[in-house]
Amino acid sequence: MDNSAEMTAIVGATVIDGNGGTPIHDSVILVKDERIVAVGDTSLEIPKQASRIPASGKFAVPGLMTACSYLTDCVSTTMLIRYEGRYDEVAIEAAQLTLKGGVTTVFDGWGPRDALIKARDRINQGHVPASRIYLAGYMVGVDGPFSRGMVPQYRVAVPEPFAARVDSIFQLNIGQVLTRLAPERVREEVRNYVNSGIDFLTYSLVDHLAFEFIAFSPRVQRLIVEEAHRAKLPVLGGAVTTGEALALGLDAGLDIVTVSTHLPLSLTNETLELVAKRRMPFTCRFETAETVEWYRSRGNTASLAYVEAGLATSRQLLGASAVPLLAAPGKVSTEDELTVQTAASPPVRGYGVLGDSHFYQLLAMRDFGMTPMDVLMAATKNVAVAYHVDKDLGTLERGKIADLVVLDGNPLADVEHYRSIHLVMKGGRIIDREALPTQRLITAPRQA
Amino acid sequence: MDNSAEMTAIVGATVIDGNGGTPIHDSVILVKDERIVAVGDTSLEIPKQASRIPASGKFAVPGLMTACSYLTDCVSTTMLIRYEGRYDEVAIEAAQLTLKGGVTTVFDGWGPRDALIKARDRINQGHVPASRIYLAGYMVGVDGPFSRGMVPQYRVAVPEPFAARVDSIFQLNIGQVLTRLAPERVREEVRNYVNSGIDFLTYSLVDHLAFEFIAFSPRVQRLIVEEAHRAKLPVLGGAVTTGEALALGLDAGLDIVTVSTHLPLSLTNETLELVAKRRMPFTCRFETAETVEWYRSRGNTASLAYVEAGLATSRQLLGASAVPLLAAPGKVSTEDELTVQTAASPPVRGYGVLGDSHFYQLLAMRDFGMTPMDVLMAATKNVAVAYHVDKDLGTLERGKIADLVVLDGNPLADVEHYRSIHLVMKGGRIIDREALPTQRLITAPRQA
Amino acid sequence: MDNSAEMTAIVGATVIDGNGGTPIHDSVILVKDERIVAVGDTSLEIPKQASRIPASGKFAVPGLMTACSYLTDCVSTTMLIRYEGRYDEVAIEAAQLTLKGGVTTVFDGWGPRDALIKARDRINQGHVPASRIYLAGYMVGVDGPFSRGMVPQYRVAVPEPFAARVDSIFQLNIGQVLTRLAPERVREEVRNYVNSGIDFLTYSLVDHLAFEFIAFSPRVQRLIVEEAHRAKLPVLGGAVTTGEALALGLDAGLDIVTVSTHLPLSLTNETLELVAKRRMPFTCRFETAETVEWYRSRGNTASLAYVEAGLATSRQLLGASAVPLLAAPGKVSTEDELTVQTAASPPVRGYGVLGDSHFYQLLAMRDFGMTPMDVLMAATKNVAVAYHVDKDLGTLERGKIADLVVLDGNPLADVEHYRSIHLVMKGGRIIDREALPTQRLITAPRQA
Amino acid sequence: MDNSAEMTAIVGATVIDGNGGTPIHDSVILVKDERIVAVGDTSLEIPKQASRIPASGKFAVPGLMTACSYLTDCVSTTMLIRYEGRYDEVAIEAAQLTLKGGVTTVFDGWGPRDALIKARDRINQGHVPASRIYLAGYMVGVDGPFSRGMVPQYRVAVPEPFAARVDSIFQLNIGQVLTRLAPERVREEVRNYVNSGIDFLTYSLVDHLAFEFIAFSPRVQRLIVEEAHRAKLPVLGGAVTTGEALALGLDAGLDIVTVSTHLPLSLTNETLELVAKRRMPFTCRFETAETVEWYRSRGNTASLAYVEAGLATSRQLLGASAVPLLAAPGKVSTEDELTVQTAASPPVRGYGVLGDSHFYQLLAMRDFGMTPMDVLMAATKNVAVAYHVDKDLGTLERGKIADLVVLDGNPLADVEHYRSIHLVMKGGRIIDREALPTQRLITAPRQA
Repeated sequence: MDNSAEMTAIVGATVIDGNGGTPIHDSVILVKDERIVAVGDTSLEIPKQASRIPASGKFAVPGLMTACSYLTDCVSTTMLIRYEGRYDEVAIEAAQLTLKGGVTTVFDGWGPRDALIKARDRINQGHVPASRIYLAGYMVGVDGPFSRGMVPQYRVAVPEPFAARVDSIFQLNIGQVLTRLAPERVREEVRNYVNSGIDFLTYSLVDHLAFEFIAFSPRVQRLIVEEAHRAKLPVLGGAVTTGEALALGLDAGLDIVTVSTHLPLSLTNETLELVAKRRMPFTCRFETAETVEWYRSRGNTASLAYVEAGLATSRQLLGASAVPLLAAPGKVSTEDELTVQTAASPPVRGYGVLGDSHFYQLLAMRDFGMTPMDVLMAATKNVAVAYHVDKDLGTLERGKIADLVVLDGNPLADVEHYRSIHLVMKGGRIIDREALPTQRLITAPRQA
Repeated sequence: MDNSAEMTAIVGATVIDGNGGTPIHDSVILVKDERIVAVGDTSLEIPKQASRIPASGKFAVPGLMTACSYLTDCVSTTMLIRYEGRYDEVAIEAAQLTLKGGVTTVFDGWGPRDALIKARDRINQGHVPASRIYLAGYMVGVDGPFSRGMVPQYRVAVPEPFAARVDSIFQLNIGQVLTRLAPERVREEVRNYVNSGIDFLTYSLVDHLAFEFIAFSPRVQRLIVEEAHRAKLPVLGGAVTTGEALALGLDAGLDIVTVSTHLPLSLTNETLELVAKRRMPFTCRFETAETVEWYRSRGNTASLAYVEAGLATSRQLLGASAVPLLAAPGKVSTEDELTVQTAASPPVRGYGVLGDSHFYQLLAMRDFGMTPMDVLMAATKNVAVAYHVDKDLGTLERGKIADLVVLDGNPLADVEHYRSIHLVMKGGRIIDREALPTQRLITAPRQA
Repeated sequence: MDNSAEMTAIVGATVIDGNGGTPIHDSVILVKDERIVAVGDTSLEIPKQASRIPASGKFAVPGLMTACSYLTDCVSTTMLIRYEGRYDEVAIEAAQLTLKGGVTTVFDGWGPRDALIKARDRINQGHVPASRIYLAGYMVGVDGPFSRGMVPQYRVAVPEPFAARVDSIFQLNIGQVLTRLAPERVREEVRNYVNSGIDFLTYSLVDHLAFEFIAFSPRVQRLIVEEAHRAKLPVLGGAVTTGEALALGLDAGLDIVTVSTHLPLSLTNETLELVAKRRMPFTCRFETAETVEWYRSRGNTASLAYVEAGLATSRQLLGASAVPLLAAPGKVSTEDELTVQTAASPPVRGYGVLGDSHFYQLLAMRDFGMTPMDVLMAATKNVAVAYHVDKDLGTLERGKIADLVVLDGNPLADVEHYRSIHLVMKGGRIIDREALPTQRLITAPRQA
Repeated sequence: MDNSAEMTAIVGATVIDGNGGTPIHDSVILVKDERIVAVGDTSLEIPKQASRIPASGKFAVPGLMTACSYLTDCVSTTMLIRYEGRYDEVAIEAAQLTLKGGVTTVFDGWGPRDALIKARDRINQGHVPASRIYLAGYMVGVDGPFSRGMVPQYRVAVPEPFAARVDSIFQLNIGQVLTRLAPERVREEVRNYVNSGIDFLTYSLVDHLAFEFIAFSPRVQRLIVEEAHRAKLPVLGGAVTTGEALALGLDAGLDIVTVSTHLPLSLTNETLELVAKRRMPFTCRFETAETVEWYRSRGNTASLAYVEAGLATSRQLLGASAVPLLAAPGKVSTEDELTVQTAASPPVRGYGVLGDSHFYQLLAMRDFGMTPMDVLMAATKNVAVAYHVDKDLGTLERGKIADLVVLDGNPLADVEHYRSIHLVMKGGRIIDREALPTQRLITAPRQA
């Protein structure tokens, strides 16, 4: 058997490998099957049979990784109705749009478990090109799309059996009911859940009504984390909104937190020390200075407060050596939804549009004060480390899976250059970006 | 060219021709192409080339006609979202279900005009088997599905551009805005509308918020009717809910009225005399005694009041020689909708389910005190006369279009026998009832 | 008996008598008991025993009359709860505030009948100083404060028996139920109502949900007007919002209309001719140019459209020789209500505050293009004529009731001068304006 | 000075002193000033100057104490509007109604602090006869009456400044905002609060939206309790609704808990052991068997579940040696409120009506399986012990404050006999029960 066709050399690019060191100019990246077999300078010998991809003057970075995205919109009645039974296809469409944007790996922290598993497996089996998916399923402690904590006002518009069915497909048996169960019963449910095919676990630190109360007692939080860890799954804590919620999550041992708060967190020294000691990875919705100004100029004090609270909190965490990770907020929207969303959003390209929003987040991280290298690592290696997948992903190094993006411009010179994608490779295969998404559901143009 | 294959003889049935006279036993009905060429007793000679359909012991009646049905559900968010752009197919599915139940002609008094035109034309051109459709489009004076008078509470659950688009597809430019226009501007809009391909015109007698106010001034009502009549279209007055509304509609010259009222109408002698003089055709939702009792036993006073008001009003109208016409209430529902609907409905077979509901209405008319022959005529000839299509439809007579139903049981003996369908012929063609609906949208079983 | 104390002479003022003619300089107005016994120049002999009121350099005008005010707020939950059983006192407080502002007569077109009768009678009997009240009670065809057409959202905040009781105190038996009754039954109810102590009748031309439908059929409108006229009561038509509503009201014979519309009326030539022929009196909420600009600058398109529609409609009516009458919009508000109201109102002194709002309306009429003399007559004689009380009120003439206002500045020179009140006389008595209101309920300062 | 008038002897009653021992027949209770100076049998010498109250055949028990009542309705818009600035008078009216029912001491766990302090002080100073009040003010962690966790739907019916003012009068600065503050900031606020004149502290164990989340982190709960204890105030934990909430409250060291839950609590052995060890005092809404049956027969599954959950939970707690305390649920209602309430309540005398509801609770405790002696102690000594006021209150013993009730019937024979009040003495003074309430606000009959 001759594997020669499977060997590829990317030749001439400047490699920024994700480890934070000096880039390698005039590099060679040698890929065999799905892995990188060598990264070096021009002295590296390129096997004859390798196909060569010329990349002189270009820049190779690890495939981007978003630490928290939602591939499946959990609240769009249109989506829920129109694609019932096909949520896996919806997730794949989303993962194709992210891949098109250079994101080779997506951590989906909140969605319909079984549909996401189906999507993940189809992608992993090579049936469809799309971002690699790691999924948590639904968030432990929260009820389904039509429940009181989500969009109960939509419930009246659909038949009750549909609402009940959708709720149960999402929340399964790990919803808000767990707040009422005895610890050992919670353990059973969580144990079943962590063994049901998910890749990491998300649990809710706070309630989903006021976002100010604590969802689980300390001992219950600890057992949730224990059960996930016993199954070797990392744990994401959903929606830190108060200092006490963060403190309890840290005590419980969670691995990553999402910050989303309407008021700056009141953090104690004790908490800040723990954040520092753990170099706590966190995701947050960053915003550029222009966006903040836009909210301010519109007199939308509620939105402004939310934006500023998020930034102030992130600044506190960063000051305590917490590690920011790239999030790709937003969702894939229909034409109609996009119209509504655009009208309410700052005039920023792709704001809140999955597949595009990560570019904006990268800019916002820069505006936030991070160095271009920190931004790169927040979008690659640090995500891999936080989720314990750095053995395979996150850097351009020998032995790693060959997920990479070749850019026309230098992202260390200007973060805008992440948009200048020349080529995306995932698992050693060059992606035909023009063909994505291969099947349009949500993004199909509306028939006249 | 030999047309012999197009000649059919139905032999041996008792013919109840719809004119109210004595049935013909051991009859022969001779059909050529789409028309009846002869109806007679056994002495009638059957051409050799005619194919013979034996029907001894059976009963032939004209194809049933419903004077007011809605083939397209205007308020189901599920339907509106899932089948956007395909409402014509939804209408065809409905018309196939009615045809399956022996209804060869449906008058659709309220729906999406262009989709219904498309459905009607496809059916008329013979592309799909389904009930013959006569359509009014939307009701003049009423706004679309998501408007305040319909189901505004659903609006929040869909993107605003979708709601706006659906509203405009339904209401076109003949909605509530007409109440604010000067008479001559109303005339223009109505004139355009009556020339847009509809078969009759429905206009709203009352508001759609409290159902107690008057939608249009007398002079505007008159011009609406004038414009329809000028285009040779009959006029249906929507939802008589008060005595004054009926009086004004009669003055304006409308041809048929729908009664749907929460309180018995207060009718003046003047109005009753006009009803009598015109032998005013009307539709109403009849109910059997069991149903009334069911509502009473449940303590559901609001529903009971509505049911009793409808019956009391119908009784008044009947007493004044008004002519009741068969309506087929309800809609085609998804499995989910059916679950909800069934839970709230009296335990009557097919209650409120289009395609089935007309059987119940026939029984309810009998309970209401009509003779079996009156019931038959309310479902056939009287509908044809009211809508001015009796030249072609409504009876089994030479020259009429061959729309007929052959029953196993005698409907003059027992109204239940309308369900004992042996054969449905529409336009001279025998319908393969088992194949209906040919394409399931709304009624497709839900995927597991 | 010596009547000398009852004779008063106002000496030296310029009299603008309300008839539109040339003012009389250096006048003498002689008042005996409650009537004017003479108006003349300095040649008029002043009886010795008369008390003299020097008014040189000042301007005497008839007491102001507002054609449509609501002394009792029908929607304030605070008022309805706090003063249950004392609505008459609330009305008196309001009528004292209007009197303080120079309004000697108020036509109350919509309120709690029995409380208003009690207030009127106490005022007429001389128990309390306050504007003379003519009252319609509640508006025929409209339901009470907590009903669907008013503020149903407040219903949940009060015990149902209270809501039901308040509704019935207001709407009595002439509410929306009349839309469902046969004409003769409506006649009975209206007849009872016009004989229950009211001074004029208000009926609703349109629904109170969308304000676009017609409340009563033409024949019912005619009989409502007939019954009022039979009892010698003038009829006010409430809330003209569409051209057809106005046309029907004119046909029915109503005497005065209130214009309040979100869209400019579409009026036919026929209607405009009838308006002209009748010189139809109407009230409207006028606005100054600054107010229109304020609404425009705030981007509040809904309010702007409403304001502009009212003005456009008034302009049409004025062009057709309709006769504008002064309205005093707004209500007496608590400190809390005022805070809310002020935040939402244009920065105009006393905007929407009863007792003050008529000054603004007078200015707005001027901005609207009326001459100062037209403005004066709109606030005096024309109101009296429209309501058929010009035998006693509306002008400064011999024989009339001595209702008058003496101003420091000339209102024909500047409409602002209506605020420069030197003295208010009502029924021959000088009002102690400083003492008003004599008992504060709504306007009492809140206790710390 | 002759103090003889201040000495009273109640002679001949059977004394049930509240300690659980054998009653003393033919007793003498000697009261001087406000205290009991002796309790004994007939051998006890009665000073000559003592006034004698004959009580042969009657039964003397300690004045009843309710461990959790709300003297001021926090959600009635009617009350809040009508009596703004007079909430202290409302509280006094309520405390007079409870005193009339034999309750000499009320622990008010949730209300407007300053008004309650004013009421308490006026009562203590002897200005008005009423139950002795111990008050907590508002519940720490919960926002005011119009906030999202209370009755936000009423907010729209009142002017916003009123709603904001009422909210702040109730919640002061210890509302839901504390969930977002850093622990030391919470400590400051709580410290200020415990020193503001309250008698005990209530804090919220759970959220007030879903009643399933945890209001404060363990460390914050501990410091709340610490601050109260430092000020020698007992702590009541509000609304145990989940097992974890109870566990955390126990850990924090609270003194008494209120149980109010829609689902039976899931309690761990650890929690049950702690309950047992502490002999945790708790209040709960008990129900008689008839009431449970009434809810069941009405098919009101939500209410039934709530009632059954409360009982099941109480049974668990009782099984773990927790100590039930009498609560007096309900409020003082207007005639209108009573109409609404009665329609929704089981047909039980005084159900949910403050001043009467404790009689029903006593019966319900009996039905729950408690012995008459346990019931007596739950309503007297055990309340005093739980709140650390047993030095002065709770039993009929020498040195205690002379709060007592003389009954015609034996409450150990039949709990119904608590209604057979012959005499109420509070602080040594005989109460003129017929005169109560001395000033009617809420309970004033409505004026015709």
